[in-house]
Amino acid sequence: MRVSLSDLTPLSLGAALLGTGGGGNPYTGRLALRRQIELSGREPELIDLQSVPDNALVASVLMAGSPSIGLEKLLCEAQFTGPLRQLERYLGRSVDALIPIEVGGVNSLLPLMTSCATGLPVIDADGMGRAFPTIDKTTFGIAGLNPCPNVLANAHGHLVIIDDVEISSLERVSRSVIVALGAHSGSACHAMSGAEVKSAALAGTMSLALRIGRALLAARAAKLDPAQAILDEAARAHPHAYGRVLFEGNVADIKRETIGGYNIGTGVLEGNERTLTFAFQNEYLYARERDRFLTIVPDLVMVVDRDTGEPITCESIRYGQRVTVLGMACFPELRTPAALKVCGPRAFGLETDFVPIETLTQGFA
Amino acid sequence: MRVSLSDLTPLSLGAALLGTGGGGNPYTGRLALRRQIELSGREPELIDLQSVPDNALVASVLMAGSPSIGLEKLLCEAQFTGPLRQLERYLGRSVDALIPIEVGGVNSLLPLMTSCATGLPVIDADGMGRAFPTIDKTTFGIAGLNPCPNVLANAHGHLVIIDDVEISSLERVSRSVIVALGAHSGSACHAMSGAEVKSAALAGTMSLALRIGRALLAARAAKLDPAQAILDEAARAHPHAYGRVLFEGNVADIKRETIGGYNIGTGVLEGNERTLTFAFQNEYLYARERDRFLTIVPDLVMVVDRDTGEPITCESIRYGQRVTVLGMACFPELRTPAALKVCGPRAFGLETDFVPIETLTQGFA
Repeated sequence: MRVSLSDLTPLSLGAALLGTGGGGNPYTGRLALRRQIELSGREPELIDLQSVPDNALVASVLMAGSPSIGLEKLLCEAQFTGPLRQLERYLGRSVDALIPIEVGGVNSLLPLMTSCATGLPVIDADGMGRAFPTIDKTTFGIAGLNPCPNVLANAHGHLVIIDDVEISSLERVSRSVIVALGAHSGSACHAMSGAEVKSAALAGTMSLALRIGRALLAARAAKLDPAQAILDEAARAHPHAYGRVLFEGNVADIKRETIGGYNIGTGVLEGNERTLTFAFQNEYLYARERDRFLTIVPDLVMVVDRDTGEPITCESIRYGQRVTVLGMACFPELRTPAALKVCGPRAFGLETDFVPIETLTQGFA
Repeated sequence: MRVSLSDLTPLSLGAALLGTGGGGNPYTGRLALRRQIELSGREPELIDLQSVPDNALVASVLMAGSPSIGLEKLLCEAQFTGPLRQLERYLGRSVDALIPIEVGGVNSLLPLMTSCATGLPVIDADGMGRAFPTIDKTTFGIAGLNPCPNVLANAHGHLVIIDDVEISSLERVSRSVIVALGAHSGSACHAMSGAEVKSAALAGTMSLALRIGRALLAARAAKLDPAQAILDEAARAHPHAYGRVLFEGNVADIKRETIGGYNIGTGVLEGNERTLTFAFQNEYLYARERDRFLTIVPDLVMVVDRDTGEPITCESIRYGQRVTVLGMACFPELRTPAALKVCGPRAFGLETDFVPIETLTQGFA
């Protein structure tokens, strides 16, 4: 299928919802993709994961760094086609198809921008089924695939290629580079064969984002509850996607800093004599009421505007907003013991084990 | 000429003297070169700067990072041949000759180690005529040559290639990478044509180090004053090399930290009712008595053991050592207005203009 201008709003909204607070701001993401489609006169092509030939060369293109900084800096072509072309030059081989590394308001759309500029198709799949703040937390990495060479470039065209670093050290090395490049950097990485990507990627996540975004817009137009519409559509699309409305209230406090190239903070919500707290590292890490976790990473926390259902990302959430908080089960591929080692709560320094949202919200009013 | 095992001690000592406290520890430098000569059965070849063909491809290999950390980590071949081979692969062309980027106990010897491993000749020249802590402070850079691509690798074989960064930002980006790689990293950079290197390099500095080191050993053997022998030999070899004994005394205080991948600190010397203070960033930056600078960067400060003349580098100077402090004029190429902008006192955050040692020590007892 082709992604048309009319898909941009639902796609960016759905991607930002699944981005669980991170993955980039959907407004800047869709503005940049709109411009790229108009400039190139080319609608990006989305292809099925299963249609990728085994011997194709696939790579991810993405924005890395703090989404707070991404919100202040315009996306420029040098940051997505630049790293891709350098990756091809470094490997001595052309890339045949692109795959998003994660789902998010920018990072689902950036491969499409690259598609406009290069004509390469984008695979309807990704490596997280949500967004994560670090490069090691993907189904690609969990399957033993190394993201190296990781090519990074900022808007000045400064280029850094990182290679031969084991995945457990790669985030540390890459993040130092990203900070030095201005804490907002385009990346091309995870060069994989078609066979590898078919065995490791989560299929259909771009379509899923589009479906959820359309459901949100339809509910809004029909004056129905957008939060419930999001959960219903996700469950229809994916049987694993158990979801719950966790909370309604106002943002009572937000602390947010750019630390080490991440957007890090905590927040407090108040409503109906209840208090919900959360923390984020680019993405929301959990939603908790007093001592009780209601949703915890890698399950998804979504914060949306109470009236419009518009996703509120971690770089744009602010005091006084009236919000609804949703929890949703992640892809089952992220709940295996091997996956939880990499993307479970302890991988983020939280002192708790993962408990599925289905269990956490049992008996929940 | 060939560098033989009997040259290693004088060469490393002379290089450490000219390294003005930095450039790596001469003891670890000569141990590593000895091992490399024995392993390879090959004595490295030193060639004249003027013999390099115009169309040859020349590159620098060096250790970057904090010499304090360099003292604790062994040098391994992956750190010097590794970056060189990756530089060649990235450029798609073989390197014909190596050039030290600076003079120092490790960084004069590392190209010779690489010569043992590869058979490539080493040019008797460098880009500083001393050592400096940052990659922009070379006669190559002052001549407008960019060190990029800068290839870095640590002992684990982690590889980072930095390219297309203007020289004024390169140290910041490179240093972040060096810190992420363990604050001690091999580098291959400054790929230049033979014509470029002949117009920009300081000739004969490897021979100069060897001469000074031999003079030091000869004075020591003859029970003559080694400090004066060093200065006399330098002046004989290079008419610009005005030098003075500045101070004799004991190390009364040393503060040293590894900050941002540099070896940074200050020291106090006491003797004959005089007090000398100094500061260092990998290399000694100045020697000062009360308010009076006696020598200031880019002129050279050398601290040597009072009895043996053994150079004492900034990572090994410690409380109680009995030392002699020497000052020496740098190469005139580092005293031009363009050079002083890059390597004068203000480039190190010192709030003073450069004054030549000849002026500072006028009327000095």
